[in-house]
Amino acid sequence: MRFRKFHAAGNDFLVLAEDPRRLDEGFRRRLCERHTGVGADGLVAIEPAASSGPVPAFAFLYWNADGQPGTFCGNGARVAGWLAYETTQARRLELIAGDGTHPIHILAENPPQIEVGLRLVQAPLPAGEKQWFVHTGSPHLLWEVPLTQLKTFPLATAAPPLRWKKDWDPHGVNVSVFAALGPHQWGLRTYERGVEAETLSCGTACVALAALVAPQQPNPIEIHTPGGLLSVTFREGYYWLRGPVEETFRGEWLARS
Amino acid sequence: MRFRKFHAAGNDFLVLAEDPRRLDEGFRRRLCERHTGVGADGLVAIEPAASSGPVPAFAFLYWNADGQPGTFCGNGARVAGWLAYETTQARRLELIAGDGTHPIHILAENPPQIEVGLRLVQAPLPAGEKQWFVHTGSPHLLWEVPLTQLKTFPLATAAPPLRWKKDWDPHGVNVSVFAALGPHQWGLRTYERGVEAETLSCGTACVALAALVAPQQPNPIEIHTPGGLLSVTFREGYYWLRGPVEETFRGEWLARS
Repeated sequence: MRFRKFHAAGNDFLVLAEDPRRLDEGFRRRLCERHTGVGADGLVAIEPAASSGPVPAFAFLYWNADGQPGTFCGNGARVAGWLAYETTQARRLELIAGDGTHPIHILAENPPQIEVGLRLVQAPLPAGEKQWFVHTGSPHLLWEVPLTQLKTFPLATAAPPLRWKKDWDPHGVNVSVFAALGPHQWGLRTYERGVEAETLSCGTACVALAALVAPQQPNPIEIHTPGGLLSVTFREGYYWLRGPVEETFRGEWLARS
Repeated sequence: MRFRKFHAAGNDFLVLAEDPRRLDEGFRRRLCERHTGVGADGLVAIEPAASSGPVPAFAFLYWNADGQPGTFCGNGARVAGWLAYETTQARRLELIAGDGTHPIHILAENPPQIEVGLRLVQAPLPAGEKQWFVHTGSPHLLWEVPLTQLKTFPLATAAPPLRWKKDWDPHGVNVSVFAALGPHQWGLRTYERGVEAETLSCGTACVALAALVAPQQPNPIEIHTPGGLLSVTFREGYYWLRGPVEETFRGEWLARS
């Protein structure tokens, strides 16, 4: 089976020549395993869909590294947008996901810069001391920490007990820590459910942070993640998540499934 | 640039179409990075060498995930043995590494089972409470822990302070925890220098454990690692490390170096 591998600000995804729905959950998980598989935070696929407007539309299909279907993934959607652009050469597109329709803009091609529009499912709610819950298609717990602690914060041990809180979602939440770096610059690290580890960046967490800080911030805001720089702009009723996409390698799977 | 990816009991290696010596250290490190690269514990290469005996000989070249040349790697040598077998069809081979010559036996082809012979550089020495130092071409600190603690032992936090001890090597040591599972069965987990993380298995650590427990143990011993089962047999003056090798995928690198 042939495949392609992308990363979007360090958040990495497999695109298979075969429809991932035709593989069993264990094989999808095996492919995402870092040592005995190819390694990825998730699997991305698109398929043509009927458009409700003047631009081409695609269904956006997404699986987490655990092999199970995931909720909306912002960086994965930016990779899916690139795949849709390759097919259509259209720089404006629509992705249809489980939580609704997301517009895509291809802003540059070489290297690719892609933005995807998200709406809030629910306005930010206080969830504890310096903690807020924001639902952006995926449920997020955001936790403000002192800037001096952001890089060394023990997310691997501090996030799991919060991640399994079912207050907002039966499958628990993603957990991020953040700190202000400057007037419209933020640092953000995210522990993702489904991956069950810190990822190098998380697109929907960036949008959750933008929604939380929007009233006090100039527009756009820039978000520095361990995997690179992303930005979020609020306009026309959408939070636009913008950043790079890079295809790192293509390959052919040889081992047993 | 085309490449191949192997794992040997979960310890995973890149084999490049290009000579890794021609790449700069940063690019070797980038290729081994799990999210923005291909992902591997190290790079393996072979080149034909003059044989001192009746079997084909190859130089064994090895780099750690940090991009720097590594010391002898037992599982990497088993992958190198497979590459040499593909070239020669010879089931007995020699690999010449920095620490001397290592015999290789191809025991099975489908799936591959390969053993490599190692000699001790230094007999085991006490290094603390339930801790021993064993040099097998790579320097190891072995730490016996209760069986009930082996799986949950916090190697990620407990190993780094020990790993940087320079008592035995200016570059510090690899750190393993182990426990007896039965009369000739052991559990072993290893934090590897150069990777600076726990790997799913470490071949030279298995040999270090075999050397430590040899006087009290039947021969061979079986070692259960997070990545799979390895065995070590002492015969003819060598510790023979035996286990599987699997080619998982082949690919072509597309991103910038």
